[in-house]
Amino acid sequence: MSQLQGYSQFKHFNVSSPSEFVAHVEINRPKKLNAFFEEMWVEVGQIFDKLSYDPDVRAIVLTGAGDRAFTAGLDVQAASESGLTSTSGTDGARRATSQRRHVLEFQECITKIEKCEKPTIAVLHGISFGLAIDMSSCCDIRICSKDVKLSVKEVDIGLAADIGTLSRLPKIVGSLSWVKELALSARIFGAEEALAFGFVSQVHDSKAQSVDAALKIAALIATKSPVAVQGTKELINHARDNTVADSLKYTAVWNSAMLQSDDVKSALLSGLQKTKPKFAKL
Amino acid sequence: MSQLQGYSQFKHFNVSSPSEFVAHVEINRPKKLNAFFEEMWVEVGQIFDKLSYDPDVRAIVLTGAGDRAFTAGLDVQAASESGLTSTSGTDGARRATSQRRHVLEFQECITKIEKCEKPTIAVLHGISFGLAIDMSSCCDIRICSKDVKLSVKEVDIGLAADIGTLSRLPKIVGSLSWVKELALSARIFGAEEALAFGFVSQVHDSKAQSVDAALKIAALIATKSPVAVQGTKELINHARDNTVADSLKYTAVWNSAMLQSDDVKSALLSGLQKTKPKFAKL
Amino acid sequence: MSQLQGYSQFKHFNVSSPSEFVAHVEINRPKKLNAFFEEMWVEVGQIFDKLSYDPDVRAIVLTGAGDRAFTAGLDVQAASESGLTSTSGTDGARRATSQRRHVLEFQECITKIEKCEKPTIAVLHGISFGLAIDMSSCCDIRICSKDVKLSVKEVDIGLAADIGTLSRLPKIVGSLSWVKELALSARIFGAEEALAFGFVSQVHDSKAQSVDAALKIAALIATKSPVAVQGTKELINHARDNTVADSLKYTAVWNSAMLQSDDVKSALLSGLQKTKPKFAKL
Amino acid sequence: MSQLQGYSQFKHFNVSSPSEFVAHVEINRPKKLNAFFEEMWVEVGQIFDKLSYDPDVRAIVLTGAGDRAFTAGLDVQAASESGLTSTSGTDGARRATSQRRHVLEFQECITKIEKCEKPTIAVLHGISFGLAIDMSSCCDIRICSKDVKLSVKEVDIGLAADIGTLSRLPKIVGSLSWVKELALSARIFGAEEALAFGFVSQVHDSKAQSVDAALKIAALIATKSPVAVQGTKELINHARDNTVADSLKYTAVWNSAMLQSDDVKSALLSGLQKTKPKFAKL
Amino acid sequence: MSQLQGYSQFKHFNVSSPSEFVAHVEINRPKKLNAFFEEMWVEVGQIFDKLSYDPDVRAIVLTGAGDRAFTAGLDVQAASESGLTSTSGTDGARRATSQRRHVLEFQECITKIEKCEKPTIAVLHGISFGLAIDMSSCCDIRICSKDVKLSVKEVDIGLAADIGTLSRLPKIVGSLSWVKELALSARIFGAEEALAFGFVSQVHDSKAQSVDAALKIAALIATKSPVAVQGTKELINHARDNTVADSLKYTAVWNSAMLQSDDVKSALLSGLQKTKPKFAKL
Amino acid sequence: MSQLQGYSQFKHFNVSSPSEFVAHVEINRPKKLNAFFEEMWVEVGQIFDKLSYDPDVRAIVLTGAGDRAFTAGLDVQAASESGLTSTSGTDGARRATSQRRHVLEFQECITKIEKCEKPTIAVLHGISFGLAIDMSSCCDIRICSKDVKLSVKEVDIGLAADIGTLSRLPKIVGSLSWVKELALSARIFGAEEALAFGFVSQVHDSKAQSVDAALKIAALIATKSPVAVQGTKELINHARDNTVADSLKYTAVWNSAMLQSDDVKSALLSGLQKTKPKFAKL
Repeated sequence: MSQLQGYSQFKHFNVSSPSEFVAHVEINRPKKLNAFFEEMWVEVGQIFDKLSYDPDVRAIVLTGAGDRAFTAGLDVQAASESGLTSTSGTDGARRATSQRRHVLEFQECITKIEKCEKPTIAVLHGISFGLAIDMSSCCDIRICSKDVKLSVKEVDIGLAADIGTLSRLPKIVGSLSWVKELALSARIFGAEEALAFGFVSQVHDSKAQSVDAALKIAALIATKSPVAVQGTKELINHARDNTVADSLKYTAVWNSAMLQSDDVKSALLSGLQKTKPKFAKL
Repeated sequence: MSQLQGYSQFKHFNVSSPSEFVAHVEINRPKKLNAFFEEMWVEVGQIFDKLSYDPDVRAIVLTGAGDRAFTAGLDVQAASESGLTSTSGTDGARRATSQRRHVLEFQECITKIEKCEKPTIAVLHGISFGLAIDMSSCCDIRICSKDVKLSVKEVDIGLAADIGTLSRLPKIVGSLSWVKELALSARIFGAEEALAFGFVSQVHDSKAQSVDAALKIAALIATKSPVAVQGTKELINHARDNTVADSLKYTAVWNSAMLQSDDVKSALLSGLQKTKPKFAKL
Repeated sequence: MSQLQGYSQFKHFNVSSPSEFVAHVEINRPKKLNAFFEEMWVEVGQIFDKLSYDPDVRAIVLTGAGDRAFTAGLDVQAASESGLTSTSGTDGARRATSQRRHVLEFQECITKIEKCEKPTIAVLHGISFGLAIDMSSCCDIRICSKDVKLSVKEVDIGLAADIGTLSRLPKIVGSLSWVKELALSARIFGAEEALAFGFVSQVHDSKAQSVDAALKIAALIATKSPVAVQGTKELINHARDNTVADSLKYTAVWNSAMLQSDDVKSALLSGLQKTKPKFAKL
Repeated sequence: MSQLQGYSQFKHFNVSSPSEFVAHVEINRPKKLNAFFEEMWVEVGQIFDKLSYDPDVRAIVLTGAGDRAFTAGLDVQAASESGLTSTSGTDGARRATSQRRHVLEFQECITKIEKCEKPTIAVLHGISFGLAIDMSSCCDIRICSKDVKLSVKEVDIGLAADIGTLSRLPKIVGSLSWVKELALSARIFGAEEALAFGFVSQVHDSKAQSVDAALKIAALIATKSPVAVQGTKELINHARDNTVADSLKYTAVWNSAMLQSDDVKSALLSGLQKTKPKFAKL
Repeated sequence: MSQLQGYSQFKHFNVSSPSEFVAHVEINRPKKLNAFFEEMWVEVGQIFDKLSYDPDVRAIVLTGAGDRAFTAGLDVQAASESGLTSTSGTDGARRATSQRRHVLEFQECITKIEKCEKPTIAVLHGISFGLAIDMSSCCDIRICSKDVKLSVKEVDIGLAADIGTLSRLPKIVGSLSWVKELALSARIFGAEEALAFGFVSQVHDSKAQSVDAALKIAALIATKSPVAVQGTKELINHARDNTVADSLKYTAVWNSAMLQSDDVKSALLSGLQKTKPKFAKL
Repeated sequence: MSQLQGYSQFKHFNVSSPSEFVAHVEINRPKKLNAFFEEMWVEVGQIFDKLSYDPDVRAIVLTGAGDRAFTAGLDVQAASESGLTSTSGTDGARRATSQRRHVLEFQECITKIEKCEKPTIAVLHGISFGLAIDMSSCCDIRICSKDVKLSVKEVDIGLAADIGTLSRLPKIVGSLSWVKELALSARIFGAEEALAFGFVSQVHDSKAQSVDAALKIAALIATKSPVAVQGTKELINHARDNTVADSLKYTAVWNSAMLQSDDVKSALLSGLQKTKPKFAKL
């Protein structure tokens, strides 16, 4: 599996290219269960920012290195030394301002996964706590292995999850009762529940098989028109946050430009000729 | 099954009346897998517009003629001759304007299924691609047969679905991961998945049994107060696109008028007397 | 099970304290299947208002007394004597105004269950019709027993449900097709369906076991930081009604203050020391 | 002033072409103070629908024939014979349904003035009551003569204005106190107030001078790129109803297509060469 | 001027009835420049709640007793002894929770002025600081005397205004630059500016003349159909917070019931007969 | 006037400190009428980002160097060489994608002026076209000199303004008729109109006097509690884009933290003692 060109400067992530137009981003701190500290979330934002406009990438898979964890979440020890329990500021209002800025910056890094124009597929395995839910909720598709141990863990460290889980989870699964039960109790849940309530759309027997399945979906998506694929992602995300009437209108404007690609003709022709279409870079 | 009076002018659809206050709309181009061209989507809009105010109709079932397909979607050959790859307009902006108007008009026809004041039940069977998802997503209830082959097919012809699927699907099922997987990959999915993720609420063994089940639900709904039924439809659709606080307020205003019907008294009385209530037309 | 202090004035509800920081609210009109009349919905609003700020309460369980019903819904006989079919007002507009005010006041009482700052768990068993859905949809978590008979019953008495079911149900479960089927047909559905479509997140064999399970979840939540727990509830409810971008921003402001509690340190320390943290009242 | 081709079938309006790419729509029932009855509002909707896509039209002026009135509003006598006080329907709920449909249809006709893709300029003079405010609030620019007598007249006939004034006025002028004073009191106000609070942006001495000024603005707009002009209208209307963040996003998508016109180059070149640019039809 | 029946229990406000269907609420603490403490804002909420449903009241005028002030705002001394600088709560998060609840309760009292179903007219004179802006921004119409000294005063006591000024002011006047200049600088501004930027819609020479003008508008409004008047208020407030499309829809539903009053016929008939219509209570 | 420390790296802007806690940002390309090219809008974003968190800055004034122009807008020659008429991309959809990204990045730089946590005051003088409106609409307060020549110039170069003017202008002034007249005609307007319709809140005789006035307001704001001032800015901006109910709620959460500053006590004490309060940095 070759490294993807232009991503070697990132220290905590491997970015490789398993097949044409597919990028594989691997969280690479397995000895610490891939737990995150500030430098890492800054890096993850930069990587997805770069992938967003990279014409050689049409689909992205996000995984965690090692057998034990996608990520155990925030590295609490590191966090407690930095912003989480910051005491800067001379009074309550000033400390709060400092905290608010810190949370917004952290959110902004993670949200870059969602803003990336290319479809992203998260593969959850082993321990997948806290930030694992925040990050995978930013991905478009979630797949997990049978051994996964998921948890919205934040209440157990005395705080409400603030990096996106509580904002996104209610909109991506099919039971608010279940979301609240998980987030209020911090209990660990497994693959079966995750599938039944729609958090993931596929479960596979092992991490390896799950990664394989994700890479196959990514490879399949990468064969499609990138104009069609990236528009589809954008329009679904727009729909999540807007009324149907507004989404229809936005869709019409979006496609007014996008229907002028050569891809529709290529795709139709390939369909008739049973050949594989080639699409220009985007 | 008698034809419903006043609908015989429509060429591509059969509109019949299988039981009191129930209309059955059948897409009738089975030799071409019920594929749609422009004249058809204009007609479907007109039919549902007319049904919306027809006092003899209280519930509607939408099906596709023949064994093979609800609809294979857009008749691509016909479409490529009309608006889809239009080259009118002297530059990119003018072509885009022409495309935008075309998409908006197409959307408007299909949206009339949703705007119809009467409850609508779609029965999906066989090939149900592209426009099949757009149209059934406008219906209130979705039922399918075991043999159904569903697909959000548009990326395979090089475009993002723009007639409503991407705007409505995220709000009517229980897993955004699943919605995105389907829409990005265009893979075919079946009845079991459709039920598990909430796209349909019932699966039956055959097309015939599915249509039967739909007609029974329609007949049941048609026995209820049309004031109560049509208000219920409107209020759920309002809730989908508004905050809970706004929906509660809208509900109170709506019912301030609707509670003045004689239907509440009739319904209560029939409940006590174990008789079948009669409700005036609406 | 001791009574919770300060709630003995309520006539139609038992409010007890089964364990530390847990309140148990029981609808207590079992002879009439716990059916509601006006005095009762005023009381339920007052109880949850009071619980909302009660520092001795951190989680709440809501159940119905007796074996037969959580609640059969509105006591129709009582209602028909009061506001439901009010004829006050000299013309249609004045009657409508009177009805609107009545519905808004009724909604406001039931919405207090949702506005209560503490997590609430509804246990549904036996007959759970109409208002049972309105009220449990205001709760955070829903659990039911195998014998439960659920129904959005309102169309059967000639009206669209107006106390919250139609506003909330589409946002808390995973299939709009299912929501509409239930609300339009008023058919009775059971525990299995309720779980499959996400209305409840747990099903237990009997009422007793369901109440037990609810009390255990409540007890578990009550051991957590109340700052974290109440923030989690508020932020999920905010997310339901706002865009992701707005929710992230609101979350950052919320936590800017809440991260200044001592609870984060206590929780982290307890985590390291494997002890049970103690949190100050809120 | 030549008649505009293709509009001669409209009975109650003159549609002429005073200069290149400019249409002038004149309400033509001066003997009755240009008061409206149903046939007229249906016609006005059809006219603006047609103008919206007419490539020979780039700006529109709307005036009332005669010296005495832009329009005195609804022809109350005609209205009382048709829908306004309809008694169809067997009970309160059914009468309300009939009324609601009637109001929605009336609104839809008038809203077509706003939805017209071309900029519209209303010239208000003389009596301009009720529907005069509804219709001119749908126009982009409002101009009036010194003699104008404006009034949100509806409360004086016992109803809240329901054809758009109350929905649009709060968003197009600069004082909610003034809007409410006018709408609650139905008092007549003049040109000076209309200008001071921003309802009109220009006042001229006479009807003739006002029409002249409007035609000049229209002629000026008609010399600009229609791509730029119609985009500007659309984007301002979008901004009125959306957050700044959503509007910026919509703007970027809109212009992604529109910047591909030849008009930018033509306009830049003409600017350098001090020549008058020619733009292709849209 | 007779006292209005049923309001004598309020200690800090005079509630009188200057003419038929008009209520006059006077803040009555002139020795302290009508400055507010907690008991007063609780009372003002109760008064407007009661007026909202009082069938003998159709329009309300709000003034401050004495020559010197409408109100100087919060009685800072009283406030500093109660919630404003509360130190209850054992840590920052708990103090913040206590503050949040306090602000919400204070807001809720003042918002009752806005929620009152009857039109309200504020008359500002003399010192009108802080809470004067919060409260008058909740009124429908604002009038002032030439001597008025207005100020968004809160930044001068170290806090951002939180009882409604910052939420409402941007939506009721015509210049955001002016709103921000005032709110950020806390500078005092007068009648001329207030009129020019649309905060008030009338200025009169003295307090007496301003009160007179307000009572005349109120008396005029009180002669209109209360169905039309209260609908007008509700629909304008709805428009302020919703899109035009949503407001039109809400308007149609609202009027579907309200057009069934006898008031339309009475008003039309009175118009023809030049008599004064009589409308039933609401 | 001393340079502000830490801003010397910016090539096209002077950033000085005319008085304590006040920053003065001057666009510094007077020979080219302060026209913007890409490097400049990137810089302006960086400057306001930096000022946003700079504890030594509490208020900011934005001006243009030289007598002739605040800014003539986009340097069209430079733009035509870069993104504006980009032809990269092999088909219409790919060119549109490239344009959309370009517009979004440009918008993001300018929006940083709005997102800056500190109040900003724009001083408009001389030629103030296109980007001058975009940028000053992001500022909190606008002041201009009598000689100002303002124009929403974009339609004259064949495009709809896309860097924020059309999104923000409708929300910050008091007449939509005027906004549309300006944006559709591109006509030049002056100080008097700008004041009358609320675009600016002050007009002064010369550029020098206008800058003086702005610096005085800034200095005044800089003497206030930065906690109160920055909260006020944030809450007004939130109100512009949200309903009143949502803004009140957001305000309560915001102030729950901010009321815990020492500034309230300092301000109250200084008020009583007639001394000048000192506030800690933020």
